[in-house]
Amino acid sequence: MTATTPLRVTVWNEGVHETTQPEIAAIYPDGIHGAIAAGLTELLGQEVTVRTATLADPEHGLSEQQLAETDVLLWWGHIAHDQVSDEVVERVRQHVLGGMGLIVLHSGHFSKIFIRMLGTTCSLRWRNPEGGERELVWNVNPTHPIAEGVDQPIVIEAQEMYGEFFDIPTPDDLVFISSFTGGEVFRSGVTFTRGRGKIFYFSPGDQEYPVYFHPQVRRVLANGVRWAAPVAGARQAPEVSNPQPV
Amino acid sequence: MTATTPLRVTVWNEGVHETTQPEIAAIYPDGIHGAIAAGLTELLGQEVTVRTATLADPEHGLSEQQLAETDVLLWWGHIAHDQVSDEVVERVRQHVLGGMGLIVLHSGHFSKIFIRMLGTTCSLRWRNPEGGERELVWNVNPTHPIAEGVDQPIVIEAQEMYGEFFDIPTPDDLVFISSFTGGEVFRSGVTFTRGRGKIFYFSPGDQEYPVYFHPQVRRVLANGVRWAAPVAGARQAPEVSNPQPV
Amino acid sequence: MTATTPLRVTVWNEGVHETTQPEIAAIYPDGIHGAIAAGLTELLGQEVTVRTATLADPEHGLSEQQLAETDVLLWWGHIAHDQVSDEVVERVRQHVLGGMGLIVLHSGHFSKIFIRMLGTTCSLRWRNPEGGERELVWNVNPTHPIAEGVDQPIVIEAQEMYGEFFDIPTPDDLVFISSFTGGEVFRSGVTFTRGRGKIFYFSPGDQEYPVYFHPQVRRVLANGVRWAAPVAGARQAPEVSNPQPV
Amino acid sequence: MTATTPLRVTVWNEGVHETTQPEIAAIYPDGIHGAIAAGLTELLGQEVTVRTATLADPEHGLSEQQLAETDVLLWWGHIAHDQVSDEVVERVRQHVLGGMGLIVLHSGHFSKIFIRMLGTTCSLRWRNPEGGERELVWNVNPTHPIAEGVDQPIVIEAQEMYGEFFDIPTPDDLVFISSFTGGEVFRSGVTFTRGRGKIFYFSPGDQEYPVYFHPQVRRVLANGVRWAAPVAGARQAPEVSNPQPV
Repeated sequence: MTATTPLRVTVWNEGVHETTQPEIAAIYPDGIHGAIAAGLTELLGQEVTVRTATLADPEHGLSEQQLAETDVLLWWGHIAHDQVSDEVVERVRQHVLGGMGLIVLHSGHFSKIFIRMLGTTCSLRWRNPEGGERELVWNVNPTHPIAEGVDQPIVIEAQEMYGEFFDIPTPDDLVFISSFTGGEVFRSGVTFTRGRGKIFYFSPGDQEYPVYFHPQVRRVLANGVRWAAPVAGARQAPEVSNPQPV
Repeated sequence: MTATTPLRVTVWNEGVHETTQPEIAAIYPDGIHGAIAAGLTELLGQEVTVRTATLADPEHGLSEQQLAETDVLLWWGHIAHDQVSDEVVERVRQHVLGGMGLIVLHSGHFSKIFIRMLGTTCSLRWRNPEGGERELVWNVNPTHPIAEGVDQPIVIEAQEMYGEFFDIPTPDDLVFISSFTGGEVFRSGVTFTRGRGKIFYFSPGDQEYPVYFHPQVRRVLANGVRWAAPVAGARQAPEVSNPQPV
Repeated sequence: MTATTPLRVTVWNEGVHETTQPEIAAIYPDGIHGAIAAGLTELLGQEVTVRTATLADPEHGLSEQQLAETDVLLWWGHIAHDQVSDEVVERVRQHVLGGMGLIVLHSGHFSKIFIRMLGTTCSLRWRNPEGGERELVWNVNPTHPIAEGVDQPIVIEAQEMYGEFFDIPTPDDLVFISSFTGGEVFRSGVTFTRGRGKIFYFSPGDQEYPVYFHPQVRRVLANGVRWAAPVAGARQAPEVSNPQPV
Repeated sequence: MTATTPLRVTVWNEGVHETTQPEIAAIYPDGIHGAIAAGLTELLGQEVTVRTATLADPEHGLSEQQLAETDVLLWWGHIAHDQVSDEVVERVRQHVLGGMGLIVLHSGHFSKIFIRMLGTTCSLRWRNPEGGERELVWNVNPTHPIAEGVDQPIVIEAQEMYGEFFDIPTPDDLVFISSFTGGEVFRSGVTFTRGRGKIFYFSPGDQEYPVYFHPQVRRVLANGVRWAAPVAGARQAPEVSNPQPV
């Protein structure tokens, strides 16, 4: 509770839109990862050290050592999910099972790591009209630490629509439900535990809209990092055998 | 599974609006209970025997014997919650704990029996504009028996708005989430177990709108009756002591 | 997270065994409440201020002001549940719904407040053989903050037996499962949320055995107090109406 | 509910112990699959048609067509998990997501399909002393259809020990908890939903002990088959996009 060692956060982004589409680069001049990292640093200050990594880095910036030195990993991907190496995905999975927190963002619902941790298709209903739609993010779990200090609702003026049915396992905690102009609803903030690792999925955030500059979205991500941090005694594999009776 | 004995259903309604407000009586000429009962009979046929009961009946139509002969109780109330006798509420609670199914409808969220079973305030956000709002009821649990054969979404053209935060315990199953024209969301179909009794809360349905004639709403209520029926071996109190080791 | 204000803890105990049975007073010379309070002070130090209250105190030591100044309330009762005033029970309930943490201990499973918050009978299987039985408390939720730093399993040499079926609603989190010499099992550490209040039930602890001096039991209770503390922004009633669309 | 078409059940067993170890073949002369299939036929009669399949069959007896004609698949494996083809595992997964029920038995906790559906290591504590230990299987969810008509507790005189921590995600339903002579506990009956498919894991059952002839174990498996059967409208992939507003 009185952690004096900063949480080590890695913000991972495939980083393809920003490097190939000028209109996206204009929205996120430092990359989506840059915007997310800036938000975490702004809100959490010395509570964290934040590094970024992208698909183009050696081993995607997720080597064994880099993961061993990560307490919480944020994941943004969209058009290059299949370019992520299976070996890296399995490595990330092992670290999550050992206690590393994982925050999966927006279109990361179709990432290999999310599907691998949850087992389902993670598919959803989708629409992206010209100019986007208004998304309202409602808190249905007011005592959850991820919702601390967050507006009821968060108003995001322009977003693409993600709707139900969202094919995920029943979450441990349902924190946020979004509605869209078209009337759809979406479980937009959900948590899971896998092994010793805590997982938070949060859907607001897109390459075409400046959602990661939204102060309330930044607040949720900062809360999420705190929540997903390993508890003391984590980062160990479960024992498989103990033949002696108690 | 191959039950040849019909389920015994009691539809309870306070029955005050219909007897004091001609405009409500015009919408529900046989009472809200009458409309609900007709829907169950229409869809479930010989699978059920349906009786109705109201506040004005002796013991509100919920005597010990009447409850002992009820497999599933549906509850609609709104402006007369405080006129329901505490003794009857406790009697209903005991039957639910013993295995009787309970389906609480719409404004019944503030009924004594619902609050007594759940422990929370059961309060919610509310608005009833002239002419109502469109409610879309989304199924987020497609394999749940209560959602069997139900449209995605159910479209209800005119309803009052119920919104989050809805102060209930975490439900066992979240089946439906509604959105409203104003952008609010609501966990509109949720289940709980208390003792041996299964509880289903379903919010669509109001005295000012003909919601209980809506074919899809009728389908949900019929599914709910099947789901809430006691399993074999229910309708018994839990043992409190068994001093002999196994 | 960096709370500098101590958590205000009230340890409530009916305090009847210790004042009427010398053999119990010999085990708990400062009362069960005294032993629990000492354990919390020992482990949490300046993180908490601890007061005790008993049935015999005016308003049972749970006046409106005393509750308003309590962040987490621990509750131990056994033979005097029915002597607790209904008015005080309802007052405690309102504070829990508003955000006060509640930790219910051992035979408190039959307290008015526990039954009132959960809605069920809270009954269980029971046996108290001469000399007690060995209870093993297994952690099935290793990342839960209540289990932090706790042995796997906790070994309690002498206890009475509490066994399943334990008639409670499905808990939010299942943290501990106990086994007993006789072979019974029991969900001995479970959590619930009601309104803004967090509730933890922990069964180890009895007037006939010195369980509240056990270092591991003290660790669990200290963890429980931290976990049940209100989150920022709690201690407020939910809004019931908001007629303006977003 | 009034299904006149029998459920199509496939009992899959790796079938290695029985064909290579005479002492196991003596316990299960028709194979573990044969014993399980006989129990289902005995209890469910014309409600089911049961076929068996083993590792040695072409495509392990789990071709696309064979899976398409299976409503519920039971899975027993132990020493040959790694010989199961990845292609078949992915095929099974797709059918589960589309609605096929899956019942994973005992040492199948380490099967590829179970780990693939759940995402965790699925490891556990283990001991197999000479002659086994007594396992008591306690029902903690008395209204669950899988527990219908089952003794409290089920007594299995000889079993190997499986204990916590069992590294699985939080189950949808916790139905059974076992204790063992050594004092360990285990969540021995748990359910999950993945996509449209229902999954039941049940731990009692081993090649060295005649557990699959135990009448109560057979009752649980028969209940499990009924429970895991696809609901009407299942066996379809979720829609991924619907660009038109409602």
